[in-house]
Amino acid sequence: MTIVITAFERSPDGGKGLARDTRVRWALEEAGLPYEVRLVSFQAMKEPAHMAVHPFGQIPTFEEDGLALFETGAIIFHIAEQHGGLLPDDAHARARAIMWMFAALNTVEVPVLDLTIARFVEHDKPWAKERLPIVQDRIRQRLRELATRLGDGEWLDGAFSAGDLLMVSVLLRLRPSGMLDEFPNLAAYVARGEARPAYQRAFAAQLAINAPPG
Amino acid sequence: MTIVITAFERSPDGGKGLARDTRVRWALEEAGLPYEVRLVSFQAMKEPAHMAVHPFGQIPTFEEDGLALFETGAIIFHIAEQHGGLLPDDAHARARAIMWMFAALNTVEVPVLDLTIARFVEHDKPWAKERLPIVQDRIRQRLRELATRLGDGEWLDGAFSAGDLLMVSVLLRLRPSGMLDEFPNLAAYVARGEARPAYQRAFAAQLAINAPPG
Repeated sequence: MTIVITAFERSPDGGKGLARDTRVRWALEEAGLPYEVRLVSFQAMKEPAHMAVHPFGQIPTFEEDGLALFETGAIIFHIAEQHGGLLPDDAHARARAIMWMFAALNTVEVPVLDLTIARFVEHDKPWAKERLPIVQDRIRQRLRELATRLGDGEWLDGAFSAGDLLMVSVLLRLRPSGMLDEFPNLAAYVARGEARPAYQRAFAAQLAINAPPG
Repeated sequence: MTIVITAFERSPDGGKGLARDTRVRWALEEAGLPYEVRLVSFQAMKEPAHMAVHPFGQIPTFEEDGLALFETGAIIFHIAEQHGGLLPDDAHARARAIMWMFAALNTVEVPVLDLTIARFVEHDKPWAKERLPIVQDRIRQRLRELATRLGDGEWLDGAFSAGDLLMVSVLLRLRPSGMLDEFPNLAAYVARGEARPAYQRAFAAQLAINAPPG
């Protein structure tokens, strides 16, 4: 059965690869799976047909063989569980890789999302300027802790896993802010993620939609 | 091997059951697993011995037979995968239950955590009063979408699962705010979760530590 995912008809980031379909594309590329993409407009995301698959009216979604999933972490876990290359075979190492998937989304990304709120959603509020450094400091604390744990490791726990895929994807959101460069081992870790051929193919695929040539 | 989890020596909520060890206790009770608890002070949470298990210096952690995990979602998934009662057998239903685990933590809890920041962390900031309703409206949007999906269902997708365990736990954080009561089907859903004997045992166990009788 063909895998069909959804993505923004036009991503708010203009093709920087920060929309969450890039994460799913990357996982599909690591697993070597072909897929099709259905583009969804902002209006269509909130209409009944899409809300039937994604009750919160977002992208991406994943459909294959009668199974419809939303929630990026769950989609990537499903791909990782069905196919090789994203989770280790050893039971303990596998549990730790899944632990890093949750850590990326629940512990590191939560303050990172607040930066998006501070910079874009609430940028015209009277508190925007004074609140920003508080939000940034919350992110720095997490980055400091993550940098300490990573040390000079190549990936978070042995071989590359779906945990690294999500952590690198979350950290990439910070690049425009310059904060990532305050932690050289994290910046190098992200660069290793981006250098993977599967990431490169995923990035190119979303770019072709969001910033088509000529 | 004995399962050992960590919990606050003294929970900031004074025993309301909102600390994340309650979620892990609940999962262990649903699975019928005995466990021991190691209490950790706020100071000890940030010291090397604890940071070696939890790089972000939080609770809960989970240790069993040489495996050490942090991140509540990952711990509950590990319990659910190893034991019955928390994930359905059918492959598609199982994938959807995992989807709801991620949705609870990544889509619904993210704005809910912002309420904690607005009410407690930033309560003395000059913007506290004006920003609060904005944060509340972001939560209401998610609650409205969740309420629409739940409809008159007993649980999110068929039988009770780890997805419901986490969603109920996230929604419980909203009870003090009164916002939950704006959505009667969600309030009833949470009440069904609380009524489960496994939840009752988990709640009582954390209460015995945080609000000891006499």
